[in-house]
Amino acid sequence: MPETIKTAVIGLGSMGYGMAQSLLRAGHTTHGFDISDAAMARFHAEGGAQGALADVAPHLDAIMVVVLNAAQAETVLFGEGGVVAQMKPGAAVIACPTMQPDVARAFEARCQAAGVHYLDAPISGGSAKAAAGKLSIMASGTPAAFAAARPALAATAAQVFELGDGAGPGSAMKAVNQLLAGVHIAAMAEAMTFGMTQGVTPEAFLKVIPQCAGTSWMLENRAPHIVAGDYTPHSAVDIWPKDLGIVMDIARGAKFAAPIAATALQQFLAASGMGLGREDDAAVAKVYARNVGLTLPKKPE
Amino acid sequence: MPETIKTAVIGLGSMGYGMAQSLLRAGHTTHGFDISDAAMARFHAEGGAQGALADVAPHLDAIMVVVLNAAQAETVLFGEGGVVAQMKPGAAVIACPTMQPDVARAFEARCQAAGVHYLDAPISGGSAKAAAGKLSIMASGTPAAFAAARPALAATAAQVFELGDGAGPGSAMKAVNQLLAGVHIAAMAEAMTFGMTQGVTPEAFLKVIPQCAGTSWMLENRAPHIVAGDYTPHSAVDIWPKDLGIVMDIARGAKFAAPIAATALQQFLAASGMGLGREDDAAVAKVYARNVGLTLPKKPE
Repeated sequence: MPETIKTAVIGLGSMGYGMAQSLLRAGHTTHGFDISDAAMARFHAEGGAQGALADVAPHLDAIMVVVLNAAQAETVLFGEGGVVAQMKPGAAVIACPTMQPDVARAFEARCQAAGVHYLDAPISGGSAKAAAGKLSIMASGTPAAFAAARPALAATAAQVFELGDGAGPGSAMKAVNQLLAGVHIAAMAEAMTFGMTQGVTPEAFLKVIPQCAGTSWMLENRAPHIVAGDYTPHSAVDIWPKDLGIVMDIARGAKFAAPIAATALQQFLAASGMGLGREDDAAVAKVYARNVGLTLPKKPE
Repeated sequence: MPETIKTAVIGLGSMGYGMAQSLLRAGHTTHGFDISDAAMARFHAEGGAQGALADVAPHLDAIMVVVLNAAQAETVLFGEGGVVAQMKPGAAVIACPTMQPDVARAFEARCQAAGVHYLDAPISGGSAKAAAGKLSIMASGTPAAFAAARPALAATAAQVFELGDGAGPGSAMKAVNQLLAGVHIAAMAEAMTFGMTQGVTPEAFLKVIPQCAGTSWMLENRAPHIVAGDYTPHSAVDIWPKDLGIVMDIARGAKFAAPIAATALQQFLAASGMGLGREDDAAVAKVYARNVGLTLPKKPE
């Protein structure tokens, strides 16, 4: 029988909630914490363990931090009532937000000073894979951090890339992936609407391009949303000003010119500025459609 | 036994040569013409039919035009001694270069005025698939043009997308594909070199990203060239100032703002300006490497 642990997921959003479910399903005692009482109540009803974070923190073997960004992670970990100061020696913090590698290294140092392991562990795969326990995790950290995190990783990931023996490389690889993913979504939108000006329908685009050299994982995943006129947010527009913003911050620090990522970022900012921030990120196509006066497919009534 | 025809390929470059081989292999009487005598001699030695174009043109059932661009196609088809005026009624011109849809429509009209069918038939798949007779062809034209072109298409393509009943849609879809393909190559180069500034090695990039949401067909095809330090041109840098140039010309005509494609084009122009135009298009990574002082992998001696 595999080892079971006491664990908590902090941040029960579209990714964290599914990860918490996956931990429960694997037999781990799993607490779920969120600023939304409704999310916590829903998780309790599914079998999540009870108790306030301050009370349970000393007993946890590992926590997975699945909040939005580094600032939220810092508050959760090191702010007033922060969890790291309450955790037992040898427990693990598994930090999943996309953040700058330098920030991840600073978090690692602060955890280590408190006797707690830190795994730099950005996640990829989307909410469906989170719920299925089939994420990809781009991880780096000390061997001891990996060992302490292992049961939680096994319950939530199909694939754990071990990218280095300290914090930093995990976050760096995630930034590389997000650069590409963001660019590919915006490029898909650009190409589809460009085609529409030439009589290529979104349906024809979706039939042909996935079988040609112009395809991408993101195109195959997101183009159907536009064809269906369905902008239910699997991943929202506002993820990209954040994640491409992190990419550009890292790039600026490295004096690295990333003109394509910079341009894609502008398109997501334009979408957010149009009030589309909470829609599915495929809604970046609406920026192009507005600019040239195209009508995108509508969701059937 | 399938119908065999008399055919010719005009333009024996990396794509046309393989297509001519595929036509031969399918049992068709196949002439090959090129400005390079060496390419023609090589094709004759492989079984290509003999004879000057002016002599054989009246007997051809179909020609495949696989020259570099619309200007070369116009010269071949309609210039002094152009082949269309010499072709028999009902024969087919299969036009493969990437070109503006408006130009394809004009070529179609001129062929039809001469009693010759015209198929707007841009190709995708690269030289290996050309040689194997396994291209994707994005085709549009009249039913009669498709019927006349069918034996040649069957010998050269694994997949023929039938996109409309006149010239234009084939070229439009090809432009959409090239927008994406060009952007994805440059984005791959941008992301890989960005990662290098953060300690992500090209080898780690190639191991992780193809299994994550940031992948693309072009990334998986071209990133290995950079990792191997091998810029033998499967498809050259200079293809992209041409093809993304066509995309931008179409977009300008439609008042369509395509900022990501425009930015990718600048990176290929920078690569060409560095003297890399004849290298594999993955050499666009050298623009990024130069800008930030990175050393890319070298080919082992």
